Amino acid sequence: MTTEFTTRITEAVVDSLEGTADLRLRELLAALTRHLHAFVRETEPTMAEWERAIAFLTATGQTCTDTRQEFVLLSDVLGVSMLVETINSDERGGVTESTVLGPFHMTDSPVRALGADIDLVGGGEPCVISGRVLSRDGTPLPGAVLDVWQANDQGYYDVQQPDVQPSGNGRGLFTTDDEGRFRFRTCVPSPYPIPTDGPVGDLLHATGRHPYRPAHIHFIASAAGHAPVTTHIFVAGSDHLDSDAVFAVKESLVKDFSETDDPALAREFGVPNPFRHARFDLVLNPETP
Amino acid sequence: MTTEFTTRITEAVVDSLEGTADLRLRELLAALTRHLHAFVRETEPTMAEWERAIAFLTATGQTCTDTRQEFVLLSDVLGVSMLVETINSDERGGVTESTVLGPFHMTDSPVRALGADIDLVGGGEPCVISGRVLSRDGTPLPGAVLDVWQANDQGYYDVQQPDVQPSGNGRGLFTTDDEGRFRFRTCVPSPYPIPTDGPVGDLLHATGRHPYRPAHIHFIASAAGHAPVTTHIFVAGSDHLDSDAVFAVKESLVKDFSETDDPALAREFGVPNPFRHARFDLVLNPETP
Repeated sequence: MTTEFTTRITEAVVDSLEGTADLRLRELLAALTRHLHAFVRETEPTMAEWERAIAFLTATGQTCTDTRQEFVLLSDVLGVSMLVETINSDERGGVTESTVLGPFHMTDSPVRALGADIDLVGGGEPCVISGRVLSRDGTPLPGAVLDVWQANDQGYYDVQQPDVQPSGNGRGLFTTDDEGRFRFRTCVPSPYPIPTDGPVGDLLHATGRHPYRPAHIHFIASAAGHAPVTTHIFVAGSDHLDSDAVFAVKESLVKDFSETDDPALAREFGVPNPFRHARFDLVLNPETP
Repeated sequence: MTTEFTTRITEAVVDSLEGTADLRLRELLAALTRHLHAFVRETEPTMAEWERAIAFLTATGQTCTDTRQEFVLLSDVLGVSMLVETINSDERGGVTESTVLGPFHMTDSPVRALGADIDLVGGGEPCVISGRVLSRDGTPLPGAVLDVWQANDQGYYDVQQPDVQPSGNGRGLFTTDDEGRFRFRTCVPSPYPIPTDGPVGDLLHATGRHPYRPAHIHFIASAAGHAPVTTHIFVAGSDHLDSDAVFAVKESLVKDFSETDDPALAREFGVPNPFRHARFDLVLNPETP
């Protein structure tokens, strides 16, 4: 039951933080205390529920390794990662919207020439990605850098299949040309599940949620004098666009990958005509001086 | 910055829980999502702060072992354990107030006769603890069971010093007599620090908080037809009564351990007269049928 004690203890914890040297840390911990206590007062967990929560958090920490971050996954499936990413971006004035970095940006992307194929294995459906990097006012940005990574047509990143995919498969670091343009060839990516063999998988199972992410390609775009943007493009029509397991879809990032009939461009990229082609521009915010 | 997306994502996560078979789990996760997102929107953590939080939670999970529960300790120092314990107790009508179980109730207390000494080592200041177990209406409860455990006068529990203290030192399981009375001998406990060599210790250090708990003796009182109570008594005048690291002090639980001049009782307990003596009653709630 709620008593005078259950409200007074919140201020006692907040007061205990007054010696915190880092004032921002104090602000964060005080707010965390207030919200966490409000959650407990609202839901009145039993001792057994509290013990289950402790066991879940412990298992989540103990599932983490050098190559797996289960707490990031938990943050992802609760929408917290997307919320933090979006709060830290400034999407006014037509600037490209951001989305989650995800856990697979763990190796350096190989430097590639414009027009190169990042699908080093083949077998998937070929496609061409092209567009421009622009400043918010529409000025093209030559020399902008695009870091690109994606899963293959089976839904796996190179680092997940070191025996099947060469390192750097599905990855490329491109620099825009004198008119701010970029272009590369790849295969159409597939939806794939996030890892389900840990506590977060158990949580998804208990809540009747599927673990899939819709098909997407990751980008980090950066240019001198501009704030970088971490984002994806999603394949229009992909399964799970309406129910991304990590809530990362924003409508402006869903791009048409439909068939194009352009024999000259097909020759340039070495793909059979007609071919699938996604065109889009990345728009960056000038950094405030 | 806050956008339409940063508010809409909260309802998207809550909506994703609608397939949860366990309706109480759904309620808990929906409330957790709303409070967690509200915390993030209020504090607007940077990506670096989010990464630091992920690293802290991961380290907390990885500090847990079979004999150490760092997430319980985190719950303790944020006042959450006390809040949950208090919410789950019914302290109306003069019933003994509850406080945290703590991490040291991990072994069975040895059954002891009334009047026995639970200090198997000696060397500390002897004292006598006596009182009654009563129902809320004042009726004495014969055959009630008191599980008692405490740290020694150096501030360590038996399980922390297996080479120094015999197993069961500072512990006893007592049954009240025909008039609901209990009595035992022990040494006056000392304040002691919670473990500080893990992430929770780092948190206390960063917030300028000391890790000490005021001197106390743990009790779980249970009797047929009554709700058990998990509580402590605190030694009046102990250091840190106003700043318990786990916020577990309630004023009604602070008991006088002052000197008593009673040669007959001193002889009965084999302590030099005068001696320190704490007297108190434990009052239990009848179970609602």
